[in-house]
Amino acid sequence: MKAPIDFYFDFSSPYGYLASTRIDALAARHGRKVNWRPMLLGVAFKATGGAPLPSIPLKGEYSRRDFLRSARFHGIPYNPPDPFPVSTVAACRAFYSLDDTDARLNLARALFKAYFVDGVNIGEPGNVSKIAGGLGLQPDMESQAVKDRTRAEVDAAIAKGVFGSPYIIVDGEPFWGFDRFEQIERWLREPF
Amino acid sequence: MKAPIDFYFDFSSPYGYLASTRIDALAARHGRKVNWRPMLLGVAFKATGGAPLPSIPLKGEYSRRDFLRSARFHGIPYNPPDPFPVSTVAACRAFYSLDDTDARLNLARALFKAYFVDGVNIGEPGNVSKIAGGLGLQPDMESQAVKDRTRAEVDAAIAKGVFGSPYIIVDGEPFWGFDRFEQIERWLREPF
Repeated sequence: MKAPIDFYFDFSSPYGYLASTRIDALAARHGRKVNWRPMLLGVAFKATGGAPLPSIPLKGEYSRRDFLRSARFHGIPYNPPDPFPVSTVAACRAFYSLDDTDARLNLARALFKAYFVDGVNIGEPGNVSKIAGGLGLQPDMESQAVKDRTRAEVDAAIAKGVFGSPYIIVDGEPFWGFDRFEQIERWLREPF
Repeated sequence: MKAPIDFYFDFSSPYGYLASTRIDALAARHGRKVNWRPMLLGVAFKATGGAPLPSIPLKGEYSRRDFLRSARFHGIPYNPPDPFPVSTVAACRAFYSLDDTDARLNLARALFKAYFVDGVNIGEPGNVSKIAGGLGLQPDMESQAVKDRTRAEVDAAIAKGVFGSPYIIVDGEPFWGFDRFEQIERWLREPF
């Protein structure tokens, strides 16, 4: 069995969401599994001096248009979330508080859908709890152990060089952006 | 005849160079011509708070790898230029000093090839002159009229919302990045 693909993303990243709808099928076509690894873009921005896209003059307006157009181009449901972006600390902690891989994956998919399709503000811890509850999950967002685990995961991502979302690592090779999926597909067949 | 495509780029932008090798064929497949419009990323960065990619922690290292990998992926010759990036004010002025469209296009292609394939520093006005001379062109980089014309072109680009390179506008629809060429291709068939 080949090594799994690392899939880093922020729960309030539109391109991260778009990638989340395709990454498992992409990996499966090449006999791979995917490690979903939510991170916090805000922490990465401290390292790179970056800022949330909507806050940047010119680029912000363009991005809102590109989120929608890219979703249409790929046939992925997308309703512009409002507020946007939101803090995803609670969502991230809820994810890492779960030990079971399937439970984590189900929660992650449900959070993305809630925010980018159903208009639910996943920046609110109460909404994260409700979404998890609907899946029969009871994540912990408050214990120090979970806070520490989340922080360690996010710090490890930055240490790996993760500065954006989505950020995919295949056998040590990093790919930034949903628009690198074709390069990832070829790389999975054979590094070039 | 349908309206031409506007192709904005900075002469020291790797993704702008990659796009320059494909934009005319892309447009021609859909019965379009291309207006090549060099601009100065440094001026755009003042509007967006942006910075040259190589200067950004994490993102800079990633980008150097992605320039090379994207060139290999698309089968485009690319030798990492050094120094990088360079000021492209002289290159831009030389381009806009020419009135003939074919002469402009020939000079632009030659400048890109010199910098990204042949290792010539096009930040040096003397090298711009030599490259132009090899094509039988004598561009003006010094007159106030050319300086003013260049400044007006760059300001007009920023006013159109151009914040990166390449930046392509098709019938009012903006596309940022060589990685949007597939979306452009579909848009040229039919807006979606």
